Amino acid sequence: MTKTHHTRKRRLAVIGFGGNALMPPSESGQIHEQIRNAELAMEPVLGFVQQGIDLVIVHGNGPQVGNELIRQDAAAARLPVMPLDVCVANTQGSMGFLLEMALTNLLLKHQIDCHVATLLTRVTVAPDDPAFLRPTKPVGPFFSAERAQELMDHEQWTMVEDSGRGYRKVVPSPKPLDILGWESILALTEAGHIVIAGGGGGIPVRRDSDGKYHGIEAVIDKDRTSCLLATRLAADIFVLLTGVDHIAVDFNKPTQRILERVSLEEIRKHHDDGQFPPGSMGPKVEAAIRFLEQGGNECIVTSAARLQDALLDRGGTRIFRE
Amino acid sequence: MTKTHHTRKRRLAVIGFGGNALMPPSESGQIHEQIRNAELAMEPVLGFVQQGIDLVIVHGNGPQVGNELIRQDAAAARLPVMPLDVCVANTQGSMGFLLEMALTNLLLKHQIDCHVATLLTRVTVAPDDPAFLRPTKPVGPFFSAERAQELMDHEQWTMVEDSGRGYRKVVPSPKPLDILGWESILALTEAGHIVIAGGGGGIPVRRDSDGKYHGIEAVIDKDRTSCLLATRLAADIFVLLTGVDHIAVDFNKPTQRILERVSLEEIRKHHDDGQFPPGSMGPKVEAAIRFLEQGGNECIVTSAARLQDALLDRGGTRIFRE
Repeated sequence: MTKTHHTRKRRLAVIGFGGNALMPPSESGQIHEQIRNAELAMEPVLGFVQQGIDLVIVHGNGPQVGNELIRQDAAAARLPVMPLDVCVANTQGSMGFLLEMALTNLLLKHQIDCHVATLLTRVTVAPDDPAFLRPTKPVGPFFSAERAQELMDHEQWTMVEDSGRGYRKVVPSPKPLDILGWESILALTEAGHIVIAGGGGGIPVRRDSDGKYHGIEAVIDKDRTSCLLATRLAADIFVLLTGVDHIAVDFNKPTQRILERVSLEEIRKHHDDGQFPPGSMGPKVEAAIRFLEQGGNECIVTSAARLQDALLDRGGTRIFRE
Repeated sequence: MTKTHHTRKRRLAVIGFGGNALMPPSESGQIHEQIRNAELAMEPVLGFVQQGIDLVIVHGNGPQVGNELIRQDAAAARLPVMPLDVCVANTQGSMGFLLEMALTNLLLKHQIDCHVATLLTRVTVAPDDPAFLRPTKPVGPFFSAERAQELMDHEQWTMVEDSGRGYRKVVPSPKPLDILGWESILALTEAGHIVIAGGGGGIPVRRDSDGKYHGIEAVIDKDRTSCLLATRLAADIFVLLTGVDHIAVDFNKPTQRILERVSLEEIRKHHDDGQFPPGSMGPKVEAAIRFLEQGGNECIVTSAARLQDALLDRGGTRIFRE
């Protein structure tokens, strides 16, 4: 992994959070709800700006890309169905807009003079990534057996039956190889602008034997993408926002213990002991370990509610390389 | 109008072209057609890069935002309908992605080492713009009288009957006041990156009495937005791509005369004489005049096919301030 070497005047943080923050399952996704949620999601990042830390914000897009696929399907009789890469690009547009506007409004309210820019981001994956052999990541809505058969026949989708609730499209989730355009993200952070980038884990593209980049039917894990971006930008702090305030060992057992300040060595040991299940904290911890192994200094894992505290060393889990 | 004053090493061009270039009415908008059209649209801009001219590309989104509205409507029984500003943001995402990828692939093919960045762009309009009193710009699909009534009742749309083909939504088309984020566009062009921005004329926002920016149901004319952006960036060359190779006076009359090199004074005189009808060449000529009046040096109006020639002074219409 090539790292970015340059002289940075201020510290840089990369913060990743999930698409659920804008569109929780408890809401219907009305625009006024999304606008309010965007403001709530951006509020805790203000602390970074106030401390003079440069910022790159990466968001997930699970529920949003699901809605895109519903809309594509609903209009399939009238319009061509766009592939998943184009749907991810759509969500980078609309979510970036809502987040950028929320953040701009908060900066205005707090009289902080700082520009916010949202960059579309393509992320490359390896053509021979083993994920292509076995698509496993469910995306979008549930379909009836009949409609699922049509989609498998006409759109060449892979679909699986999901616990009696119907059929869902599954796509590969390959590893991110590189962030296309990280140089533009870097240039803007160096100019002091807050950057929103890598939305939904990035628009998945692959460079094929014709030498060209092509969009592909895949989704890239947002934690992996934000980790790679943090490494590429040589960020000082990598923040993973999650549903819980801390990482814990012996989670939900009588022996449960909250981790506040831990070393890379210690978190690696807990991970090797199987403390972090693949479906929940596992991917976050792996991203944290990867960031620190590749030269990062500090990783914060916490909830949006505790982020400000974590930044002041009063909450969350902070992992240090040494 | 405040202009940007700075020392630029290289010349900067702002190029605007229509959304039809990616999705002409003769095609169904399949993704492979859009990808091919994006490459065809980006091919002629390579000449600028090869001559060492920095570039900002602005695209329209007429057919694309129309399709967005069709998809929003088709899924209205299952999902909340997103407002027009969010739909424009979606098109900035997907169109920016396709254009950025096409341009990157062309640069690779020609072994030109240059970064391409796509920035979401919000554009402000005045809360008291007279356009809000009378929405006139038709957007999206045709609806039956019945469905139109539902949409007027439930979504508060303004709709008009359109020459016997059905009912269409009409929205205000206010003047662009300012390009939010032009500082980020400038920072990237100064770093030598090609920038795609202002898609669809920009995401329309308005700063209301609560001090916040809000997205609004409107569309902003892409020629006006690209003109404003060219002025803000103090661009040297402003290019308006259109369906014809040249501007002509006495268009389609026996006395028709092609304009090749003209002064601002001359084009202003022809405009005052009513030579350029509002529905076609009028808005382009007005944007050209505005750019030159506000300090621009050179404006090129031509077709994509003649752009390379125009740059070498062998085609198109070139208008100079003096």
